[in-house]
Amino acid sequence: MTAFDDLMAFQRETEALSAIAGRLGWDQETMMPRGAAEQRGEEMAAIEGVLHARRTDPRLADWLGAVDEAALPPEGQAAVGLIRRDHARNTRVPARLAAELARVTSVSQGIWAEARRADSFDDFAPTLDRVLALKREEAAAIADGGDAYDALLQDYEPGATGAGLDAMFGALRPRLVALRERIMGAERKPRALSGTFAEDAQLALSREMAEAFGYDFSRGRIDKAVHPFSSGSGADVRITTRTAPHDPFNCIYSTIHEVGHAAYEQGIDAAHALTPLGRGVSMGVHESQSRIYENQLGRSRAFTGYLFGRMTALFGDLGVADAEAFFGTVNRVAPGYIRTEADEVHYNLHILMRFDLERRLVAGTLAVADLPDAWNARFAADFGVAVDRPSHGVLQDVHWSVGLFGYFPTYTLGNVYAGCLHQALRRDIPDLDEKLVQGDTSPATVWLRERLQRFGGLRAPRDTIAHACGFEPSEAPLLDYLDAKFGDLYGV
Amino acid sequence: MTAFDDLMAFQRETEALSAIAGRLGWDQETMMPRGAAEQRGEEMAAIEGVLHARRTDPRLADWLGAVDEAALPPEGQAAVGLIRRDHARNTRVPARLAAELARVTSVSQGIWAEARRADSFDDFAPTLDRVLALKREEAAAIADGGDAYDALLQDYEPGATGAGLDAMFGALRPRLVALRERIMGAERKPRALSGTFAEDAQLALSREMAEAFGYDFSRGRIDKAVHPFSSGSGADVRITTRTAPHDPFNCIYSTIHEVGHAAYEQGIDAAHALTPLGRGVSMGVHESQSRIYENQLGRSRAFTGYLFGRMTALFGDLGVADAEAFFGTVNRVAPGYIRTEADEVHYNLHILMRFDLERRLVAGTLAVADLPDAWNARFAADFGVAVDRPSHGVLQDVHWSVGLFGYFPTYTLGNVYAGCLHQALRRDIPDLDEKLVQGDTSPATVWLRERLQRFGGLRAPRDTIAHACGFEPSEAPLLDYLDAKFGDLYGV
Repeated sequence: MTAFDDLMAFQRETEALSAIAGRLGWDQETMMPRGAAEQRGEEMAAIEGVLHARRTDPRLADWLGAVDEAALPPEGQAAVGLIRRDHARNTRVPARLAAELARVTSVSQGIWAEARRADSFDDFAPTLDRVLALKREEAAAIADGGDAYDALLQDYEPGATGAGLDAMFGALRPRLVALRERIMGAERKPRALSGTFAEDAQLALSREMAEAFGYDFSRGRIDKAVHPFSSGSGADVRITTRTAPHDPFNCIYSTIHEVGHAAYEQGIDAAHALTPLGRGVSMGVHESQSRIYENQLGRSRAFTGYLFGRMTALFGDLGVADAEAFFGTVNRVAPGYIRTEADEVHYNLHILMRFDLERRLVAGTLAVADLPDAWNARFAADFGVAVDRPSHGVLQDVHWSVGLFGYFPTYTLGNVYAGCLHQALRRDIPDLDEKLVQGDTSPATVWLRERLQRFGGLRAPRDTIAHACGFEPSEAPLLDYLDAKFGDLYGV
Repeated sequence: MTAFDDLMAFQRETEALSAIAGRLGWDQETMMPRGAAEQRGEEMAAIEGVLHARRTDPRLADWLGAVDEAALPPEGQAAVGLIRRDHARNTRVPARLAAELARVTSVSQGIWAEARRADSFDDFAPTLDRVLALKREEAAAIADGGDAYDALLQDYEPGATGAGLDAMFGALRPRLVALRERIMGAERKPRALSGTFAEDAQLALSREMAEAFGYDFSRGRIDKAVHPFSSGSGADVRITTRTAPHDPFNCIYSTIHEVGHAAYEQGIDAAHALTPLGRGVSMGVHESQSRIYENQLGRSRAFTGYLFGRMTALFGDLGVADAEAFFGTVNRVAPGYIRTEADEVHYNLHILMRFDLERRLVAGTLAVADLPDAWNARFAADFGVAVDRPSHGVLQDVHWSVGLFGYFPTYTLGNVYAGCLHQALRRDIPDLDEKLVQGDTSPATVWLRERLQRFGGLRAPRDTIAHACGFEPSEAPLLDYLDAKFGDLYGV
C-alpha cells in the first residue's frame, strides 16, 4: 500500500459515510415519522461527528505529505487535489469555532422560520448577527489573509471570486432590467393556467417527464416532499417533487429541475463512485444541469409543444388555444416578491441583489440592522415594486439563517453556464427541436452526459464548462437566449 | 464529568450510529432502488467499521475500570452491566476473526439462496462448513473455557443455557407431539379460507389491526417488503408487511406480529432512549411480545369474533358460516414442511428440532455432511411425514447461512414466555374477552407495557418475564393453553 492507496481507501469510507448522512437527510424529508425528529437530531449529530473526525484525521496530513502526485494519472491527481483542498479548509477552522457554528446553526433555522411566520425581522436580527459573526470568523480562518467572501465562495464554487462574479453580474443586471421593463410594457399577455389538476395525474405526468429526461429509476426513486430536492450520488440518486392543485407546472418543472441535478450524479462514470470525483464538481455546475433541463430544454417552444399534447390528453381542455399559446403560458413573465416562484427573466435579478447584499454583510460594510432597508431599496430599483412585508422580502430565504453566505451567486452562475451549454448544444445538434417536439430529449441529455456529466470532479468548475462547450464561459449566451426567447414571445 | 458520564455519552453516540445502521437496513428492504445494492454494501461496511471501532475502543476499558457502580442508581448499574458484557464479548473476539466472519457471511447468504433455488445441499455444504468453523472459533473465544453453544446463545438470549433450554424443550416435545397426533386424527376439520382478496383492502385492514393493537403511527410507519420485520427503537420504530392474494391472514397476522415487536420498542420509557436499556432485552422476550399479540390475543376466540365482522364488512361473504367457524379457520392446524408457515401447534416442533441439531453441530458431534439425514429422520419422527426435497427441509432457513447459531431457540422461548404472560394477564384482567370481542386490545397492551415493555433492558430476560408475571416462567402455561384451545377446537 502506497500513501495514495491508503489515502483513497480512507476517503472511500468517508464518502460512504457521507452518503449515509445524505440518505438520512432524504429520509427526514420523505419517510420519517413526525415523532422521531428529536431522536433524528441526535443521530445526525453522531454521524456528523464521525465525519468531522475523519475530515480532520491527522493521518490525512501524513498521507498528503507522502503522496507522489506527479506519478499519478490525471484522475488520481484530481482526487488528491480535492482532498488536499478540503483538508486545508477543514484544518484551518478551529474545532471550537466549528462546534459553535454547528450549535448555533442547529437552532437558527427554527428562529428564522418563526420570525418569518411572525413577519418580524427584529425577531431574527440578533440570530443573523451571531451567525454572520461566526461565518466571518470562519472566513477569516479559511482565507488565511485573502478575501473573506472569496473564502466562503470556495465551499460552493471552487475557483470563483467575488470580483469575477461582480463583473459578470454587473454585465447581466442592466440588460435584465431593460428586458424586464420591455416585457412589463408589452401589449401581448400570455394567459395563466386556471383550473384544478388531480394529484394522481400530476404525479403520473411528472414520472413520465422524469423518464423523458432520462432519469434512471433503477438507480433512484421519486417521492413527495415539502421542498423538491435531489439527494445522493452514483447508484442511489433520489429526487422529490410536490404538487399544487391549481399549478401543475410546479410539479412538472420541479421534477425536471431535480432530474437535471440527478442526471449529473447518475451520469458520472461509475469508476469515480465513492471518490472525490464521484460528485458534481460545484453548485454552479450542478445548477447549470438542473436549469438547462428545466428551462432551455423543458420550457423550449419545441418541448412545450409535446407537453401541451400530453397535458391535454391527461387533463382535457386546458383553456389554452394551441401549442403556441401554451408556450406563452408556460413562459409567462410575472413580477413577484418571491425568488423561488420567479420566472426566467426575474430570477437572476433576485440573485444579483442577494449577492451584492451578502458581500457587503461579509465585508462589514452593511450592518444586519440596515439590511431590510438595503433590501427594499434595491428591490424597488430592480423590480419596480415596494416590498410590502419582511416575509416577502428579507425574510423569505432560509440560506443566511444557516450560514450559507456565498451560496446564492451559484444559482445565477448556473444559469449563465446553462446559457453557454445551450449555445454549444444547439451548435452541435442543429435538429434538436425535431426530437424535442416528440418528447425525445436524448440528443441533448446524451450530449450533456458525454461532454460534462461523466467527468464529475475531474476538472475545476469553470474548466468543466469550458471543456463541454469548447469556449470560455461568459454571460453573453444567457442574455442572448433570454432576449431572443422573451423578445419573440412578447413582441418586444 | 465522571467516568460514568463519559461512558454514557460515548455509548449514546454509539447507540445513535447503530440506529442509523438499522435504518439503512430498513431502507434496503423497502425503499432502495435495485441498482444501488453494491454501493449500499460499501456504505453498510463503512458504518459497521465505525461501530466495530467504537465497540472495541480502548477508552471503554478505562471508563469501565474507573466507574463506581455501587454509587449508581439501578438504571445506571444495569446500563453499565450491559456495556461491560458487550465489551467483554467484543474484545475477546480477535479482530482477524471478526473480519473473516464479516467477509464470509457477506457472501454466504447468497450461496445459500442459490443452493435453495437449485435444491442442492451439496452446493451449500462447503459454505456452511466454513461458517460453522468460524462460529465455533468465535464461540471458543467468547466462552473463555465455558460451553461453546452457551456462549453463542448470549448474543440473543443473555443468561440462557443449552442445558436449561434442553430441559424445557424436553418437557414440551412429547406433549406437542401427542397434541399434534390427536388433532391429525380428529374428525372435526375447520375449513380453509378460499377466494381472492384485493391488496388495497388487505393493507387497509392491516393498518386498522395495527391501530387496534396500539401501534403508534406518529413514531413509526408501515411499508410493504418481501419479509415482514420490525426495525428501530424509541421514537422511530418501523414495521413492514406483505400480502398474498389468496391468504389475507398472512398480511393481518404478520402485521399484528410485527406490531408486537414494535410495541415493545415503542413502549420503553423515553428516558432510556439511546442507552443500553432503550432496546428490547433479548430475542426471546421480544418474541414473547410478537407472539402474544399475534396468537394468544389476535387468534383468540374473542378477537377473531371481531375480525370476522371486519373482514365480512370489507370482503363480503367469506364462505365461513359464522364467527365460531371463522375461529376454527384462523386456527386451522395443517402439517407442512415450512417453519414460517406453521400453525401454533406445529411451530415449536420445528424449533425444537433445529435447536437439537445446531447444538450438535456446534459441539462437533454432528458433521455438516450428516445434517440432511439427521434433519429428515427427526422430521419424520415428529411430523409423521418424509421431507421430499432439501428446500422443504434443511435448506429452508437463512439463519445458519449467516452464522446465526443459538438464535432458533429464542423463538420457542418467546412462545413459552408468551404463555406465561397470557396466564398472568388473564389472572389480572378476567373480563378481557369482553373488550377483545369489540376489537379493543388496550387492557392487554397497557398491561404488557406497564408490567414489561417500559423497562427495556433494566432486568435480565428471565427476570423481566418473572417480574411481569409475578411467577417464575416455565413451559406449563403454554402447554396448558395449547391443549385447552386446540383440544376444544378439534374436540380431542
